[in-house]
Amino acid sequence: MEKKLWLIEQNYYDVKDSPKYETIFTLANGYRGLRGWLEFSKYGFCGNFIAGVFDKAQAQVTEIVNAQNPLVFNLYIDDELIDIDRSEILYFKRYLDMKNGILYTDVEIKTPKGKITKIFSRRFVSRNNVHRWGAEYKITPVNYSGKIFVENIIDATVTNGNYHPADKAKHIRVKESYDFNPGIALETCTIDKHITIIEGTAIKVLDESALRNRKYGVFGEIVRELLELRVEEGKEYTLQKFGVTYTSRDTDDALKDILACELKSFYEQGLQNEIRAHIKAWQEIWDKIDIEIKGDDLAQLGIRFNIFQLSSSAYDQDDRVSIAAKALHGEGYKGHVFWDTEIFMLPFFIYTQPEIARNLLMYRYNTLDGARRNAKLNDYEGAQFPWESADDGLEVTPKWGMDYDGNPVRIWTGDEEFHINSDIAFGIWEYYRATRDKDFLINYGIETLLETSKFWKSRVEYNEEKDRYEINRVIGPDEFHEHVNNNFYTNYLAKWNIEKTLELAEWLKREDNKVYNDLLNKLDIKEEDFKEWKIIKDKIYIPYSEDGKLIEQFEGYFDLKDIKITEHDENGMPLWPDLQGYKLGQTQLIKQPDVVMLMLLLGDEFDLETRRINYEYYEKRTMHKSSLSPSMYSIMGLTVGDTHNAYKYFMKTILTDLEDNQGNAEFGLHAASTGGSWQSVVFGFGGLHVDKEHHLCLNPWIPEHWDELTFNITWQDAKVKIVVTQTEVRVVSTKDIDVRIYDEKLKVNKNKELVYRK
Amino acid sequence: MEKKLWLIEQNYYDVKDSPKYETIFTLANGYRGLRGWLEFSKYGFCGNFIAGVFDKAQAQVTEIVNAQNPLVFNLYIDDELIDIDRSEILYFKRYLDMKNGILYTDVEIKTPKGKITKIFSRRFVSRNNVHRWGAEYKITPVNYSGKIFVENIIDATVTNGNYHPADKAKHIRVKESYDFNPGIALETCTIDKHITIIEGTAIKVLDESALRNRKYGVFGEIVRELLELRVEEGKEYTLQKFGVTYTSRDTDDALKDILACELKSFYEQGLQNEIRAHIKAWQEIWDKIDIEIKGDDLAQLGIRFNIFQLSSSAYDQDDRVSIAAKALHGEGYKGHVFWDTEIFMLPFFIYTQPEIARNLLMYRYNTLDGARRNAKLNDYEGAQFPWESADDGLEVTPKWGMDYDGNPVRIWTGDEEFHINSDIAFGIWEYYRATRDKDFLINYGIETLLETSKFWKSRVEYNEEKDRYEINRVIGPDEFHEHVNNNFYTNYLAKWNIEKTLELAEWLKREDNKVYNDLLNKLDIKEEDFKEWKIIKDKIYIPYSEDGKLIEQFEGYFDLKDIKITEHDENGMPLWPDLQGYKLGQTQLIKQPDVVMLMLLLGDEFDLETRRINYEYYEKRTMHKSSLSPSMYSIMGLTVGDTHNAYKYFMKTILTDLEDNQGNAEFGLHAASTGGSWQSVVFGFGGLHVDKEHHLCLNPWIPEHWDELTFNITWQDAKVKIVVTQTEVRVVSTKDIDVRIYDEKLKVNKNKELVYRK
Repeated sequence: MEKKLWLIEQNYYDVKDSPKYETIFTLANGYRGLRGWLEFSKYGFCGNFIAGVFDKAQAQVTEIVNAQNPLVFNLYIDDELIDIDRSEILYFKRYLDMKNGILYTDVEIKTPKGKITKIFSRRFVSRNNVHRWGAEYKITPVNYSGKIFVENIIDATVTNGNYHPADKAKHIRVKESYDFNPGIALETCTIDKHITIIEGTAIKVLDESALRNRKYGVFGEIVRELLELRVEEGKEYTLQKFGVTYTSRDTDDALKDILACELKSFYEQGLQNEIRAHIKAWQEIWDKIDIEIKGDDLAQLGIRFNIFQLSSSAYDQDDRVSIAAKALHGEGYKGHVFWDTEIFMLPFFIYTQPEIARNLLMYRYNTLDGARRNAKLNDYEGAQFPWESADDGLEVTPKWGMDYDGNPVRIWTGDEEFHINSDIAFGIWEYYRATRDKDFLINYGIETLLETSKFWKSRVEYNEEKDRYEINRVIGPDEFHEHVNNNFYTNYLAKWNIEKTLELAEWLKREDNKVYNDLLNKLDIKEEDFKEWKIIKDKIYIPYSEDGKLIEQFEGYFDLKDIKITEHDENGMPLWPDLQGYKLGQTQLIKQPDVVMLMLLLGDEFDLETRRINYEYYEKRTMHKSSLSPSMYSIMGLTVGDTHNAYKYFMKTILTDLEDNQGNAEFGLHAASTGGSWQSVVFGFGGLHVDKEHHLCLNPWIPEHWDELTFNITWQDAKVKIVVTQTEVRVVSTKDIDVRIYDEKLKVNKNKELVYRK
Repeated sequence: MEKKLWLIEQNYYDVKDSPKYETIFTLANGYRGLRGWLEFSKYGFCGNFIAGVFDKAQAQVTEIVNAQNPLVFNLYIDDELIDIDRSEILYFKRYLDMKNGILYTDVEIKTPKGKITKIFSRRFVSRNNVHRWGAEYKITPVNYSGKIFVENIIDATVTNGNYHPADKAKHIRVKESYDFNPGIALETCTIDKHITIIEGTAIKVLDESALRNRKYGVFGEIVRELLELRVEEGKEYTLQKFGVTYTSRDTDDALKDILACELKSFYEQGLQNEIRAHIKAWQEIWDKIDIEIKGDDLAQLGIRFNIFQLSSSAYDQDDRVSIAAKALHGEGYKGHVFWDTEIFMLPFFIYTQPEIARNLLMYRYNTLDGARRNAKLNDYEGAQFPWESADDGLEVTPKWGMDYDGNPVRIWTGDEEFHINSDIAFGIWEYYRATRDKDFLINYGIETLLETSKFWKSRVEYNEEKDRYEINRVIGPDEFHEHVNNNFYTNYLAKWNIEKTLELAEWLKREDNKVYNDLLNKLDIKEEDFKEWKIIKDKIYIPYSEDGKLIEQFEGYFDLKDIKITEHDENGMPLWPDLQGYKLGQTQLIKQPDVVMLMLLLGDEFDLETRRINYEYYEKRTMHKSSLSPSMYSIMGLTVGDTHNAYKYFMKTILTDLEDNQGNAEFGLHAASTGGSWQSVVFGFGGLHVDKEHHLCLNPWIPEHWDELTFNITWQDAKVKIVVTQTEVRVVSTKDIDVRIYDEKLKVNKNKELVYRK
């Protein structure tokens, strides 16, 4: 049973569900993602995404490159390919062992010619050495003896955009192929940016006497080695596949030599050694991230899936990449990075693997120049982080889409969704609050904040009549409404951004005067400027309602047609109400939380009643047309006492991909939702928050049917374990820490469990 | 009903039968063959074979090149590809209209998303202009309106040898792709011989208002144009596809320019005009070749299929190519030309389209230099035609195969199957007998005969003891026995070869002394040499049996274990008898006729009893492990009165591919069998033969259930129509001719029907 709570299983085969399972079964290690493509089907969407490898070429915008596919492993019984879609499936099971980061495929297939073969395979993408991946195939000819052929292929015929004929784009061209025997390699080069990518694989046949022949061949964009084996009925044959990947992003040395050397050493060290190290690495990750939910197996499995895949999407060795909206799991949103990272995913890393959180923020710092160029192009100052970001910080949101009739439709998010700037500033501050990483703040964080504040200074417009600063023509988190003025979320967070910047500038001046002065010089900011910033900040208009409680999402929102949600589907998700002839943007229906979102980020700045009032108002009008939505309502629901809905939204969130409740899991992981899942547990059920005075606070509440909730966090270098049951809260820490449980100030002594009885 | 007798139908879809139907539905025009690959399946073996385009590269030997596939026509309903293997098939029918040379596909398909589409398409490979081919698709969205996408692709990812993973070889590399709008093109180049091949296609949407968008793209080895259409439920949309092909074999001009110009003019002239001209061309061919069998629909349909596909395999404009064993219909035997052409197929052309017969023989003349090199390499004189021939007459038979265990097995046919030399000589003579084409004989034929005779002179060995010339270590037509001495067929025909050469040399000396002397000079032959040739010829040992009737296939054959065939399968074909521990070569079982074969070629040289005795003896020992076999037994059966078996063998022959009774139709047409089918009708049932004095003789016999047999021949410039019923024989000719019916000397006056009552 315990083991089951680590396994994501697919117990049937239906080719039309393959793309979804490819996402769910993606194996990634931050360096790269390999979609859970099934080798024995000709269908599906293979995906080999290497973090940071972007290209435009024929595509509409710069996008993550689908690199040559090294997974191809064709198995022939003499001349008959084992093709699951043309065979009788006698047994089928695939499962992802999340504890160890291993994907298993267990099948028994009868070909049209009546040959039955058992194949039991496992695949991993190493967390020990990110350039390595491997697979093992245990093959049993059940009712025949004779020849089998194994075609180990690296396939560069792949393209991006295979989901729709009009989206197809090719980003790689073949440079060279190599026969290393053992092993083959294929080197490609991206079209625009000339990033070279080399994939190498080698097959080891454990029972060497079965191997009769090997043949190397190149067929256009395909390189292969063909192994001929003689097999005996009923006997099991083990074949191991060793995979190594490098790109010119990793090194200036000749990729061929590095690959040849690394493939050889991997082959010689053996698969088992790497698997062992890989499992150990996962164990170390799980020690930091695991969440246990006793009494709710589905929630247990679901939350593990989310944190497994979120952890898989990042690693600590590359600060030039971040996590895309679809992580390394698919091509959705073209591999672009959104606010999803800072607002939805970052907290998970801040509280479990702060070194990765730092990297994610360093990605923003490292793309500041692109953000500065964006600002300049738009006649603003400072840095304008792109709504969609690829490798260099330049705005890569498509400017145009097409409506169904093929008419061009302008996409405005890249022009108007400015809140990304403050979201990043907010992420920096959150990171610092939990880690006290002064080095980061001093050398990178404050520079980023200064530049985003400078942007806001240039972006606001002074309304003389009302003596206020406005931010007009924007899109807030709710993208149903474009070109709106004074969006609450945007304005509030812009104000906060400047305020926090001023506060930290002052702090830096005291903390390290030299850095402070150098920075101001570098950014061409004078101290007098801060006065202007302060005035602006104080006068940024925040559209409170008259009673100061219910907040208007943007100026004029309350004048829109008030259509409420009245019906829900079988999953409890809202159904579209009758729009009564109005366009969506003319109604109060929203895509995802906007006002409520802000109240989650800066909860302490709003009293509970205000939060409740806004939750209740907006919840009825939220269509959840973003996977970012339910988790946030879950947390706020718990905050304001709507526990029933909170649990419902929590389950929606953690099952986003597993039950595919957004209907698009095939395009990649809902990465923000994985982060939201973690937040739902830790910030929601765990009630963890940091108050204005930077105290760690816990206000846990767990559903009645949960026996126990356990989670781990890192708090200012302390590893803290928190256990919540129906009757108590237990905290143990590797260092002395202060904690407030239900507002009671408590001290947790190093390695001594604090038991708080409710 | 009449129409049905022109249609080859496939009334069901089973993906595993697709490769067979691809052969059956191949459309060819002598210049090229396009396998009947179904556009709506991802499976099967596309084949685009252009006569004369050979290459070796990674392959074991030089082979016909599978060129880039221009047939790809992907149809998407929005993002959903219409893929027959993933859909529900509501209606399926494909049929080949042989009268007009058009392949129809009529399907109604329901996709997994429930979209139903009717597609009615036709395809043709023009006989009017061999560089052109085309298709038309009538597409009806049955239960939906909206967007469809048509992906018109030329695909150069194709390889040869896809039937077995170990046989895969690639012969083309992409040179360039072009966007002509309308139309696209892809130019490739073969690896070894640098033959460039350009394929161009264009799509015309007849209802232009449906076309919304067009997009050109290149994806590695694939070029495409993507058309976006808006369609309305229930409405039929017609799309026409124009295809043009050129290679550097055709012209020295820039292929791109030629193609662009030709594609444009084809597009502008319209598909219908080309189809009309194509049908007219086929009508002209049918006027020459058609055979009518009344009272036996299966025989009628079967014989038409054979002569349709045989006619499709040749045309009259290229004398550097011949017909391969699998014609232009598949990769079997690697596109190589065997004795199949001269012995099995040539008679059809001699008697129906002598201009093509001349071309086929010119191919041998044009490859004489290669044959001379073969002889030289083997230390012989003259010309040694290759057992397997590609483009230049050099021997291309693989030297080695592999047994099941991967042990190399020496293939001896290329070293020992010398009879090909005399087979070609025989073909030349047969051609001349029927056509009296002196120009050919004088300028090409006799040179070829002189060179083959010279070869035999150097090949025979003098046995002093027995004062005879022997030809040892050979393989006869029966390939079960290798390294045999004095094979009857080989020796007899070698002797005949020299004899005929001497006769014709003497004739030439009188006919055109200058050519005669020049030729002798050129070939370094002196008149004295002829004396030696004559001695050799007279003393070539022919292994008659003691009674002079039953002939021993080769020296020592009668000493082999005499295992006879006792059982037959449900089709009346022999089952392997128990070999009693003997190896096949140690038994008297034979693969195909050898002694009997010779008696068919030179029937007049053997009395009827001899033929009967040999037929009866060998028929019981013939396994028919070649598709060349049954037709020959059919003809000889009719000659010696075994009409029951004759009819059985005839039906086997004509259904070789249609019922796939050799089990390998997928690899290409059994071209020799198509020729054998024609011979069975005309030489067998029609009883047509030319006697020693060159009289046209008819000894027809038709099965009891046949009402009437009609066939057409060309006899020395006269078009002759022969009708055989149970009671009479009718002959009508465009010129006065002499004919012997059942040994009765008759005159047929121009355009006046001769009615002979039996």
